[in-house]
Amino acid sequence: MQQYEVAVLPGDGIGNEVMPEALRVLEVIGAKYGVRFDFRHFDWSCETYRSTGRMMPADGLDRLRDHDSILLGAVGWPGVPDHISLWGLLLPIRREFDQYVNLRLVRLLPGVTPPVRDKEPGDIDFWVVRENTEGEYSQLGGRQGEGTPNEMVLQTAAFTRRGTDRIMRYAFELARKLGKPHVTSATKSNGIYYSMPYWDERFAAISAEYPDITVDQDHIDILCARFVMTPERFDVVVASNLFGDILSDLGPGVTGTIGVAPSGNINPERDYPSTFEPVHGSAPDIAGRGIANPIGQIWSAAMMLDHLGLPEAGADVVRAIEQVLTNASAPRTPDLGGKATTEDLGKAVATAV
Amino acid sequence: MQQYEVAVLPGDGIGNEVMPEALRVLEVIGAKYGVRFDFRHFDWSCETYRSTGRMMPADGLDRLRDHDSILLGAVGWPGVPDHISLWGLLLPIRREFDQYVNLRLVRLLPGVTPPVRDKEPGDIDFWVVRENTEGEYSQLGGRQGEGTPNEMVLQTAAFTRRGTDRIMRYAFELARKLGKPHVTSATKSNGIYYSMPYWDERFAAISAEYPDITVDQDHIDILCARFVMTPERFDVVVASNLFGDILSDLGPGVTGTIGVAPSGNINPERDYPSTFEPVHGSAPDIAGRGIANPIGQIWSAAMMLDHLGLPEAGADVVRAIEQVLTNASAPRTPDLGGKATTEDLGKAVATAV
Ligand SMILES: CC(C)[C@H](C(=O)O)[C@@H](O)C(=O)O
Ligand SMILES: CC(C)[C@H](C(=O)O)[C@@H](O)C(=O)O
Repeated sequence: MQQYEVAVLPGDGIGNEVMPEALRVLEVIGAKYGVRFDFRHFDWSCETYRSTGRMMPADGLDRLRDHDSILLGAVGWPGVPDHISLWGLLLPIRREFDQYVNLRLVRLLPGVTPPVRDKEPGDIDFWVVRENTEGEYSQLGGRQGEGTPNEMVLQTAAFTRRGTDRIMRYAFELARKLGKPHVTSATKSNGIYYSMPYWDERFAAISAEYPDITVDQDHIDILCARFVMTPERFDVVVASNLFGDILSDLGPGVTGTIGVAPSGNINPERDYPSTFEPVHGSAPDIAGRGIANPIGQIWSAAMMLDHLGLPEAGADVVRAIEQVLTNASAPRTPDLGGKATTEDLGKAVATAV
Repeated sequence: MQQYEVAVLPGDGIGNEVMPEALRVLEVIGAKYGVRFDFRHFDWSCETYRSTGRMMPADGLDRLRDHDSILLGAVGWPGVPDHISLWGLLLPIRREFDQYVNLRLVRLLPGVTPPVRDKEPGDIDFWVVRENTEGEYSQLGGRQGEGTPNEMVLQTAAFTRRGTDRIMRYAFELARKLGKPHVTSATKSNGIYYSMPYWDERFAAISAEYPDITVDQDHIDILCARFVMTPERFDVVVASNLFGDILSDLGPGVTGTIGVAPSGNINPERDYPSTFEPVHGSAPDIAGRGIANPIGQIWSAAMMLDHLGLPEAGADVVRAIEQVLTNASAPRTPDLGGKATTEDLGKAVATAV
C-alpha cells in the first residue's frame, strides 16, 4: 500500500479548528483510493514563541525535511509581531525547501455570491502563479540613524535570472497543461526602475520559448483594477512575490471566496516537501468558537493530493466541495450565511467524498 | 484681478484631447469668479523624445518652476519604454518639486454603474493619500552579471523618517479637515522585513499625535480584497508610493470611475508648483478619435482650484460634473454608454458651471 508521510502544522487560531476536518477528508480518501497517510503533528505556533522565544525549534526545518509534504493551517497571533511569526516559521519553510511556486486559484463557485455583479460560475476561473522565494520579500536592508530625525530605512528586492525564469516557465507550462493558452504578466516597469524592466525583459525572453501561448502584461495598478472590472479575461497570471501576494488575495476577494481559497507552496522538482495551506489567516476574531469554514484547508489538502500524484483523488475532493456548496440543505458556516459548525461542514464534505 | 500662471502639459495620446476641455471649463470659472488664468503651453511628450532623445529639454524643470501650478494630461506611448517616458518627465516633476502628496478620490458617482453590487452613491467616498517622492519608486539599484545565467538585479526602496512622517501627518490633517476621523494604514509588515515594520512604527508614533482620530492598519493583500468587499468602511487611506499607486487605481476600478478619477500631486508647503492630472493614461487604443472622456481632466482642474485657494470654484466644477452625470439627457462619451464626443461632454460641463 502506497504510504505518504505528511507533516501537519495547524499553527495558530482557527488553523487548529480547520485542520482536523482536512485530515478527516484525507482519511476517507485514503480508504477509498487504497493509500495511507501517516500524519506527524507539529504544534509550532505563536504559543511556541511565547514559551521558547522561537517559532520552531532550531532543528525545525530538518525535522520537516523528510516528509512527503506539509499541511499548514495559519500562522500569526496578536501580540507576536507578524514579521517575527512569519519569518520564524512560514517564510523559512518556503525558502529553505525552495518552494518557489505559490499557486493559488481564483474561481467563482456555485453557491457563493460574489461582491461583483453579473458574473456566473464558469466566468471567473484562473490561477495566480506567484514567485515565492525572492523578490520584494527579502531580509536585505537595514536602518541608519535610529531614533534621530535623519532616520532612514532601506529595503532591497532581489531578482535573479534563475528565480525569474523558472517561475515564468512554470506559468507557461501550467497554461499549456490546462489548455488555457494565455499568460498575463504583472509588472510595474513604469515606476520601479531596475527590477520591473528586468522582469519584463525575462518575460519577453521566456514567452519566446512558448510560441503557442499568447501573452500580455499589465502594470500592477491597472491589473488590480482589471481583476475587478474584467476578471473573466484571465487564465494564468504570473507575478513577483509581492504582486502575487496582492493578486491572490484580491482575486478571491472579487469572487467572494477568501474564506475558502486554497494554495500550494510548491517545489516542482520534488527535492523538498511542498506546503499546502489555505489563503485565509488565523482569524483571531472567530478563533475558539468552532465556526470557521474548513473548506480552504480541505481544498488545500486536495491540491496536496494532486501534487503527491493522486490527481483523481484531488479532483474527487474538489467535486465533493462543490457538491456541498451547491446543495441548499447542506450545512453552512456563518461566513456562508448559515449556522453550522466547522465540524458539520467538514463531515458533509467527507461524506460527499 | 487675481492672476494664476498655469503650465499646461497635455503630454501624449488622449491627453491632447481632454486638456482643451479642462481649459474651457477654467475659462468659464475665471469669468464667473473674476480671476484670470494665464495658460503656458508645453508640448513635452513621447514625440519630444523621438525627435530629441529627451522627454523634456535639459532646463525643463526650471521652466516650470515659477508657475502657480501644473496641469498635466497623460504621459506614455507605445514604442517608448515606460520607464523612459515616466522617469524622463512625470516622475522628475513629482520629485524635484517635492510633490510628496499624491491625493486621489474614490467616490461612487451618480449615473455610473460600478462593477460591485449593492452599493449606492454616498456609500463609497474616500481619499487615498499616497507618498509620492520616495519608497519603492527609486533609482537605487543595479544589475550584475548581465546576460549570464548568474544575472541578478537589486532594487532598493528608501523610507526616511521625514518622508514617512509628513505623509502620515497630511493624512491625519485631511481626516480632521473632512470631519472623517478615521485613517487606515496600508502595510505589509508580515512579509517585507525592514521597510514595512518601520512604516508601522511611524504610523503608531504619528497617530499618537492625533488622539481624536481612530486608526487601523491592513496588510496590502487583504486591504485590496477589502476595497472590493467592504469599500464603504474607508475614509482616508495612507500608503507608500507603490501601495498608494495600486490602491488609487483599484479604488476607482471598484467604483467604475477609472475614466473620470482626478488626482493631485501636491507640495503642501507651496514651495513649488503642484501638478494635477487624471488617473487615466494616454489610452493609445482610442486616441485621435475625439471620444475620450474629459471628466478626469476637468475634475483634476477642480482639485487645482482648491489648491490655488479657490475652493468654492472647485466645488462648483465638481457640482457641474455630477449634474451632467445624473442628467439622463446630457451627452455621454462611449465609456459611459453614449455616443458623444470629448468636446460635447466638455461643453456640457462648462455650461453647467
Ligand atoms: C505612470 C506611472 C509611473 C504612474 C505611477 O505609478 O505613479 C501612474 O500609474 C500614476 O499612478 O500616476
Ligand atoms: C502571512 C504572509 C507573510 C503571507 C505572505 O504575504 O506571503 C500571506 O499573506 C500569504 O499570502 O501567504
